[in-house]
Amino acid sequence: MQPTSSLHALRKLLKERDLDGMIIPRADAHQSEDCSPNDNKLEFISNFDGSAGLALILADRALLFVDGRYQVQARQQVNLEEFEIHHLHDEPLHLWLRDNLPAGKRIAFEPLLMVNSQYESLRTSGCDLVAVNDDPLNTIWADRPAAPRGVVTQMPDEISGEPSAAKRARMAALLKEKGVDYLAITLLDNIAWLLNVRGSDVAMNPVAQSFALLKNDGEIEWFVDDAKLHQLDSTLLNSVSLQHHDSFLARCQQLAAGKRFSLDGDTAPVAVRIAVEAGGGEIVWQPDPITLVKANKNSAELEGYRACHIEDGVAWVNFLAWLSHEVPLREAAGNPVTELEAQEKQLAFRQQCDNFREQSFSTISAAAHNAAMCHYHSAPETNMAITTKAFYLNDSGGQYFNGTTDATRTLNFGQVDAQRRLHYTAVLRGFLALISLQFPQGTQGHQLDAFARRPLWEMGLDYDHGTGHGVGHCLFIHEAPHRLAKKVNPWPLLPGVIQTIEPGYYLEGSHGMRVENQVEIVASQPGFCKFASLTLIPIDLSAVEISLLSEQDIAWLDDYHQQVREILSPLVSGDARPWLIEATAPVRTQRA
Amino acid sequence: MQPTSSLHALRKLLKERDLDGMIIPRADAHQSEDCSPNDNKLEFISNFDGSAGLALILADRALLFVDGRYQVQARQQVNLEEFEIHHLHDEPLHLWLRDNLPAGKRIAFEPLLMVNSQYESLRTSGCDLVAVNDDPLNTIWADRPAAPRGVVTQMPDEISGEPSAAKRARMAALLKEKGVDYLAITLLDNIAWLLNVRGSDVAMNPVAQSFALLKNDGEIEWFVDDAKLHQLDSTLLNSVSLQHHDSFLARCQQLAAGKRFSLDGDTAPVAVRIAVEAGGGEIVWQPDPITLVKANKNSAELEGYRACHIEDGVAWVNFLAWLSHEVPLREAAGNPVTELEAQEKQLAFRQQCDNFREQSFSTISAAAHNAAMCHYHSAPETNMAITTKAFYLNDSGGQYFNGTTDATRTLNFGQVDAQRRLHYTAVLRGFLALISLQFPQGTQGHQLDAFARRPLWEMGLDYDHGTGHGVGHCLFIHEAPHRLAKKVNPWPLLPGVIQTIEPGYYLEGSHGMRVENQVEIVASQPGFCKFASLTLIPIDLSAVEISLLSEQDIAWLDDYHQQVREILSPLVSGDARPWLIEATAPVRTQRA
Repeated sequence: MQPTSSLHALRKLLKERDLDGMIIPRADAHQSEDCSPNDNKLEFISNFDGSAGLALILADRALLFVDGRYQVQARQQVNLEEFEIHHLHDEPLHLWLRDNLPAGKRIAFEPLLMVNSQYESLRTSGCDLVAVNDDPLNTIWADRPAAPRGVVTQMPDEISGEPSAAKRARMAALLKEKGVDYLAITLLDNIAWLLNVRGSDVAMNPVAQSFALLKNDGEIEWFVDDAKLHQLDSTLLNSVSLQHHDSFLARCQQLAAGKRFSLDGDTAPVAVRIAVEAGGGEIVWQPDPITLVKANKNSAELEGYRACHIEDGVAWVNFLAWLSHEVPLREAAGNPVTELEAQEKQLAFRQQCDNFREQSFSTISAAAHNAAMCHYHSAPETNMAITTKAFYLNDSGGQYFNGTTDATRTLNFGQVDAQRRLHYTAVLRGFLALISLQFPQGTQGHQLDAFARRPLWEMGLDYDHGTGHGVGHCLFIHEAPHRLAKKVNPWPLLPGVIQTIEPGYYLEGSHGMRVENQVEIVASQPGFCKFASLTLIPIDLSAVEISLLSEQDIAWLDDYHQQVREILSPLVSGDARPWLIEATAPVRTQRA
Repeated sequence: MQPTSSLHALRKLLKERDLDGMIIPRADAHQSEDCSPNDNKLEFISNFDGSAGLALILADRALLFVDGRYQVQARQQVNLEEFEIHHLHDEPLHLWLRDNLPAGKRIAFEPLLMVNSQYESLRTSGCDLVAVNDDPLNTIWADRPAAPRGVVTQMPDEISGEPSAAKRARMAALLKEKGVDYLAITLLDNIAWLLNVRGSDVAMNPVAQSFALLKNDGEIEWFVDDAKLHQLDSTLLNSVSLQHHDSFLARCQQLAAGKRFSLDGDTAPVAVRIAVEAGGGEIVWQPDPITLVKANKNSAELEGYRACHIEDGVAWVNFLAWLSHEVPLREAAGNPVTELEAQEKQLAFRQQCDNFREQSFSTISAAAHNAAMCHYHSAPETNMAITTKAFYLNDSGGQYFNGTTDATRTLNFGQVDAQRRLHYTAVLRGFLALISLQFPQGTQGHQLDAFARRPLWEMGLDYDHGTGHGVGHCLFIHEAPHRLAKKVNPWPLLPGVIQTIEPGYYLEGSHGMRVENQVEIVASQPGFCKFASLTLIPIDLSAVEISLLSEQDIAWLDDYHQQVREILSPLVSGDARPWLIEATAPVRTQRA
């Protein structure tokens, strides 16, 4: 079988340049979780469209490295006569290169798509790494989509809570303190936060592809396609030095002589390091300081989160009331509600909210065993009926003009068997144990994660994902740096930090369940913090073994449901109100 | 006021050698927790006898750096007209040197007493660090105690569970795997484990001061004073190359050319690095691999722990029965039992055990507010009465021929007020939450620590120490590397690992309480582990608010007490048996 034309063309090009191979990662220059289509070189070359992975193209072999989640999908999507599938973590690329290629092979890489820590590990492979500064796929990717030109909008100061100038002054002072001249900002959400702008290059990712260079006097250069900027007001534009998007690296090099640049070794392209060093500058390796400052939300941002969760809660209640009504009726009529129909209906309810912009991530609308796949997204060929006989899991959220939401509910419309009841009860107990916790200010996520797992651990079970993540303020749904997870996370949890709490349980081919609230961390007793729920959605207790809940669990549920009922009942549609009242009744009443 | 003669003499000597100052740490060449008196140079020069700290002696200033525990004690013990007291952690020595001395000052240090990580941080201070290879205090410490010559004994293979030759072969294979030629062993418990010997140089620390060099073919050189070895049998002595204790560094240098030495950067003297590098060898920095191998106890060692805990449990029950009987009577008679009397009586009961050798650490026998000091040791001037009006805390353990014990009980002989009841109940609930946990094999200590703290956290309280530590097998009471603590501990918890579980609560000037069991980690459901108690001592429930315990808490207590009763009641003295039966009665009975 002949290699596909793209692979053939790339190999020809490598040969012309006297290169033995090339690394093609699933990455853009900002290490974004969601790539824009024109940046998805890995998909172009391999046909694999997962969210992580990389290809190594050699003259006579092509290898695709993907993680555990994607071993099956990769084998379905790529041509296995062209590509060998390898494991991204078990067989790291630098070790594969070291063990399988003779030393000194010339391997090309694009330094805009690789961060310093990856680059340093690849340097131990014995290969001769050749930085390719033009975009080699430009010549061979015939139908390549254009780079997005999503319009950029201003975030009003009353929503951001702090004018951009004040943020720049704060960050500049931090740079001075560290003896740094320039901060090279390559993370798109950090640029958006600093400038109080939001973009629309990639759906559900309200950021604009660009770079920025902040000087330690507060001056900023913004490297962005100015075709996107026509809606911005002059106050911002006059305070920023606009530069061509493509001139970022050259400008770093030009400014570098004798200067110290702060660079994030795990997120910034190694291309920036190369440019600064070529210009005679020095790198100060540290996490982008904006990442931590941005995570501690100010009071306007917190107000926004709280307000948009009320709108989102109304949409959820209207949706769940509709679903609870429809599922048994439509099932009986032989025309059941499906996953896709449900998620469309949910989106319609969200679109009724004044401040709703778009979804904050691809909805997971999963019935029965589809919910056992953590990253399932419904498609016509997998679209299942939602019935009274199996759980239905919905994980969805919205980008609102004043905040971002992310919540999961697992719903029972009939009877579930004893095993599923025990599993769901364990997941809920873990959720309650963590969300009701009071902990010393500054505690770190890995110290708390196990509270959400203990009820599953007692049964010899666990779930293979983190327990919670940050949520950006009208930014990314997964926001660094705080995480609640097994893995060590060194960032102290402080008032104003936003997290999700989302334990789950998944039994392949059978069922999956997860309960997720978004929370803010608030001060409580002196020196201590608590989680306060932002999410306002009833938690389904119909599949819970109430006798396994503690008094503390029940008290939390009753308090929470009272809060949900009091806030939302004046706001939901008339049909949904009786459902809400019943769904938020105290546990004792529900049990009786 | 004139400086003391020792300080004067040291300054004279520094001046003669053209040195601007000298660092004197509280350390021996093995970074032992307990120094032998002849190694305690810090006490000689400063009069401070705490277990951690260091002095910096300059021509015109003398500084003592101690941690938070010792700020008060240091001010009581040292002459404050000679010494300034500084904080060991808040004001690290290398920063003090950098900020307070002009660059290039010649500061002496003894490279046998400093580890590589300390040395590397001091190198950033701008000082000229001068290694002093002779022992400068030899000439000025007139009444210096002699180095100990404690006899070394053989540990039989049936107690160690593995012949020394087999251990050496296992470790040698690990060295080969890493491409290492020699392992320089400077940790005394690792030498004792590898050779199956126990020493007696320092009370309660059954190790022999020595060094060892293991080659990757299993050959071993032991650098030890042979006056200690007369009890060892010829099989061991013939399999080991004995060397003069003082020739260790010279021998490392002699062997080094072209060889790779494994060295532990956090525990091995930097003197070894200097010697190896001077001889043309290369250092491979890694934790001493024995530390991890030793922590996973074999079945003979585990049998030994279990057996000695039965003997220790008998001694505890006899002691507690006696104490419970005596405290109210003697209080009424106006001649109360005191802390010192209690700990002597307890030692006498332990001395009745067949396999008891000595205490495993200095007993904490603390009544009333004395127990609020975590590291309290009774002395005639602080010795308090044990009464029916306040808690009594006892933290003690034994070195037995087949294992080592460490346990704490907090005892109530009368009535305690509501606040103390709530505090004690919270401590006990934390203890129960952690000790009853099932967790995935390989979980790390920092993931579990918070279970023991949650009931205190709920009240806005906490304790300022770790939750648990390893216990050596007839070795150190604090054994690396596993810890249950807030601080990240990267070592997976696996079956065969020994830990303590010991939450507490301390209110200065008022009361202190702690409950501690020693546990072994055992396999449970597939992929999961549990803690199994080694400690067999009734837990005092008379001050517990039973209504705050969960059903799971009560079930654990009843199971535990049944086990204690069944194992110990045939073994305790006649008078103690009724007390044991009552003290181990099921919770429901006790409440009724």
